[in-house]
Amino acid sequence: MLGLVAGGGLLPVYFCRNAKKDGKKIITVAIKNEADKSLWKHSKEIYWYDIGDFGKAINTFKKLGIRKVFIVGKVRKVRLFSALKPDMRLFKLFMSLRNKKDSTLIQAVIKEFEKEGIKILPMTVYLKPLLAKKGVLTKRKPCRQEIEDIKYGFKEAKKLADADIGQTVIVKDKKVITVEGAEGTDETIKRGGHLAGDGAVCVKVARTVQDMRIDIPGAGVETIKQLAKANIKCLALQSGKVFLIDKNKIKKEADKNKICVVVC
Amino acid sequence: MLGLVAGGGLLPVYFCRNAKKDGKKIITVAIKNEADKSLWKHSKEIYWYDIGDFGKAINTFKKLGIRKVFIVGKVRKVRLFSALKPDMRLFKLFMSLRNKKDSTLIQAVIKEFEKEGIKILPMTVYLKPLLAKKGVLTKRKPCRQEIEDIKYGFKEAKKLADADIGQTVIVKDKKVITVEGAEGTDETIKRGGHLAGDGAVCVKVARTVQDMRIDIPGAGVETIKQLAKANIKCLALQSGKVFLIDKNKIKKEADKNKICVVVC
Repeated sequence: MLGLVAGGGLLPVYFCRNAKKDGKKIITVAIKNEADKSLWKHSKEIYWYDIGDFGKAINTFKKLGIRKVFIVGKVRKVRLFSALKPDMRLFKLFMSLRNKKDSTLIQAVIKEFEKEGIKILPMTVYLKPLLAKKGVLTKRKPCRQEIEDIKYGFKEAKKLADADIGQTVIVKDKKVITVEGAEGTDETIKRGGHLAGDGAVCVKVARTVQDMRIDIPGAGVETIKQLAKANIKCLALQSGKVFLIDKNKIKKEADKNKICVVVC
Repeated sequence: MLGLVAGGGLLPVYFCRNAKKDGKKIITVAIKNEADKSLWKHSKEIYWYDIGDFGKAINTFKKLGIRKVFIVGKVRKVRLFSALKPDMRLFKLFMSLRNKKDSTLIQAVIKEFEKEGIKILPMTVYLKPLLAKKGVLTKRKPCRQEIEDIKYGFKEAKKLADADIGQTVIVKDKKVITVEGAEGTDETIKRGGHLAGDGAVCVKVARTVQDMRIDIPGAGVETIKQLAKANIKCLALQSGKVFLIDKNKIKKEADKNKICVVVC
């Protein structure tokens, strides 16, 4: 039996399916208002907890004798900063942090599980096929200007990711138009498209030292829809470090909107 | 006779007043929808041009025999990216740019004036008293946590400013919550406050190599009002490099809202 803490998006669903195919039984702790409703279908048992119910989650796994847990899916950061009602255990953990950087928080959460004899395993175990591979995914290839902006954007995005600021930038004519902070990729795309007018590119990368256990950036059909709305026609992702969530759907949606998706 | 290209905000108004006190006559080219309406009171002559009428502006100064021009005030970047209707001269200039970074654009504009024998003078000539001086401006002093975040934010903001990305960051508990891109300070404050909840600080700096002729960051009463709305209680500015536009009003508005303003 394996444990799963499920955040938002489709990654946890894919995770469950793949683990089931491998003959594993999954006990899911699903985060209310984040996790996908369909998760119950793929889990042996499912518990819906509030984002702040950290102690409850740990105790559930302990009671069921689960020693191996995966943490998969996103949590909207706005909820961590303003809508969080932490239980005592999470509150203490927050108070002990040196800072509120993503990486600091993640490492603290992992440690807290480990204190209770629960190991956090890398989610890539059941999600490896989703990691983006080098190449152009779409019919349309990037034009020369876009290639220039992708190169420039990669360099800048790497710096920002490594400073633990954000992992997405919108670039046009070698100028960074918007930078992702705690507001997430979709908001950044929206703002960037509005400000840049035509011809911007979106670049998403991972940190150079990224804990591949639980914090892997991803792009999905929703990302493409946001790009289309924002009139941004090019998405570049870092190979081997970013999940492509449902490649075929991404390709279809991107082709429909003449967006090119490049993995480099 | 001195020339002035006037963008938005109160800086051009202060500039005119101070230059007049010094016995100078000012011919103003005011940017429509940006420059303050009251500028006519302080100018010998005023011409209202669209943001894209670059050639017209240069020709006006040439015709009047003006050889010394100041460029003062902000232009909302969103207008440069999406609402701009450049005349042929500006269009050619844009086409010749290596990239669309602020600093590249500014240097190209200065050069274009110089080609016509018009010198762009540093606006600090008549605005020096407005440059922020070290110290705490307000009744409330920053608390220990705020001091830590200011220090951290300064370091990060400097990196971002030097990469020509943005000059303002919102920080909380040593995490950068939002970064200014092309959307401007007010939008960044709004987003940061919404995401950070209580206790964030706002840090604004200049680039290490900033062309002090025409591109000096500023903070005014409006900045304080935005901070108050966003529930951000601390503003830190770089001394000698950022304009405090109307210090007394800033102080009053900040004290009213228990915001501390620190210049360091």
